Amino acid sequence: MTITKTELLTTGKAKQVFATTDPDTLWLEYLDQATALNGKKKVAIAGKGTLNLQISSRLFEALVAAGLPTHYVGSPTATSMLVRKCTMIRLEAVVRNQAAGSFAKKFGVAAGQLLTPAVHEWYLKSDALDDPFINDEQVQALGLADADTLMAMRGLSDQVNAVLTTLFAKRGITLVDFKLEFGRLADGRLVVADELSPDNMRLVDVATGADLDKDVFRQDQGPLTPVYAEVLQRLEAAHV
Amino acid sequence: MTITKTELLTTGKAKQVFATTDPDTLWLEYLDQATALNGKKKVAIAGKGTLNLQISSRLFEALVAAGLPTHYVGSPTATSMLVRKCTMIRLEAVVRNQAAGSFAKKFGVAAGQLLTPAVHEWYLKSDALDDPFINDEQVQALGLADADTLMAMRGLSDQVNAVLTTLFAKRGITLVDFKLEFGRLADGRLVVADELSPDNMRLVDVATGADLDKDVFRQDQGPLTPVYAEVLQRLEAAHV
Ligand SMILES: Nc1ncnc2c1ncn2[C@@H]1O[C@H](COP(=O)(O)OP(=O)(O)O)[C@@H](O)[C@H]1O
Ligand SMILES: Nc1ncnc2c1ncn2[C@@H]1O[C@H](COP(=O)(O)OP(=O)(O)O)[C@@H](O)[C@H]1O
Ligand SMILES: [Mg+2]
Ligand SMILES: [Mg+2]
Repeated sequence: MTITKTELLTTGKAKQVFATTDPDTLWLEYLDQATALNGKKKVAIAGKGTLNLQISSRLFEALVAAGLPTHYVGSPTATSMLVRKCTMIRLEAVVRNQAAGSFAKKFGVAAGQLLTPAVHEWYLKSDALDDPFINDEQVQALGLADADTLMAMRGLSDQVNAVLTTLFAKRGITLVDFKLEFGRLADGRLVVADELSPDNMRLVDVATGADLDKDVFRQDQGPLTPVYAEVLQRLEAAHV
Repeated sequence: MTITKTELLTTGKAKQVFATTDPDTLWLEYLDQATALNGKKKVAIAGKGTLNLQISSRLFEALVAAGLPTHYVGSPTATSMLVRKCTMIRLEAVVRNQAAGSFAKKFGVAAGQLLTPAVHEWYLKSDALDDPFINDEQVQALGLADADTLMAMRGLSDQVNAVLTTLFAKRGITLVDFKLEFGRLADGRLVVADELSPDNMRLVDVATGADLDKDVFRQDQGPLTPVYAEVLQRLEAAHV
């Protein structure tokens, strides 16, 4: 039985979510659009959706190959991804291997300072509230996740970090930080959901120090698609 | 041997810190001044220093009576406090029994919502950085405190909360939230330091719902000294 998309469920900042002929499966389409400042800066960028979808697919496949639980099912076309439907946890989980961006600015530390072990942060996923930074006790007080779930999210984040750091290092790229979203399958299992793309990571070219991620767009460094195409090309090159 | 003050060491937003004839003891004088928005709003208020000093002394005496470790030595005059000199931990520790202020606003919850168990938050004490909210892993990554110290600070904060909540409840006042600072004595012991005053607490009159704290100043609700005088009077009235 082939799964095909049915009605549109939601349009987010980066993706459209469709129902499918299978009640436990969703169909995601990645939009040709870049946003920053929580959607306040928004630009159409032809080809970005396809690039992000393909990068995301390669990275989810790497997590699956490493035995990690994810929502990923497959990529039926060049512009779509099938995923297991989740009850999403309303948190963004950030993992930082180096100080950068808001972290460096907020705490007055030099960008590039190594953070070992990696630092975990949660942000409440709410466009209306501007995704506020939130700590474990606040998460629990607001009923967003319990202590066991947070522990499992930390553990799974560290495993994802280990897999992706190694994978990118082999391709001459440093994984500075990234954002994950987690969801629960119908049977209660916690999985890595949403997307794994340069929209949600800081990637730096080891050779040149150049940004290979959405900072190119945030900081108006030039066109975004050649950069994302470079990341995809390195992911698709024969592994070392 | 009487301890007397010698040279001025620092002038903070609320207090002056003097050395004394004893190298392990400091002399604090509370300023007749109120600040808000991290010092951006600043007004002279005659009598406030003395009121805050006396309230702070009564509250430190209550902690000492409950067997909790503090920097408090005594109050030699109506405007001064002797404290044990500490190496301060560069964090403000906030304990919340109810949603209020920045917490309610940031997370879009109703002020007054009970937080049980109480929520702990750390803020990096830095006027230049605007006291950013910081989580446990960030604290450790920046070398501000280790995991054991954070655990001890949480435990001590909960004990302070229990003592002060009961003490205020007996006087018809609800302790909504408060800020502590911790320091280490020369022998390494962790103690509650700094001050315990309505500048650093949210206090609500059970009978009337009126604010009995610095929110009166922050929100321009009227003169501050009668409010602080009311708090002091209730603390000095015969205990129930
Ligand atoms: N497996 C999944 N099941 C259900 N929802 C998902 C899954 N993966 C991602 N989502 C959600 O799909 C929505 C659309 O994604 P996106 O465009 O990135 O939205 P946003 O604007 O919230 O970032 C988001 O709410 C995201 O959390
Ligand atoms: N026992 C102590 N030993 C050393 N320093 C202390 C002690 N108690 C408080 N302090 C420090 O005294 C300084 C002056 O207090 P305050 O006027 O409240 O300063 P601030 O402007 O930093 O809030 C602060 O840096 C505070 O942390
Ligand atoms: Mg998204
Ligand atoms: Mg102070």
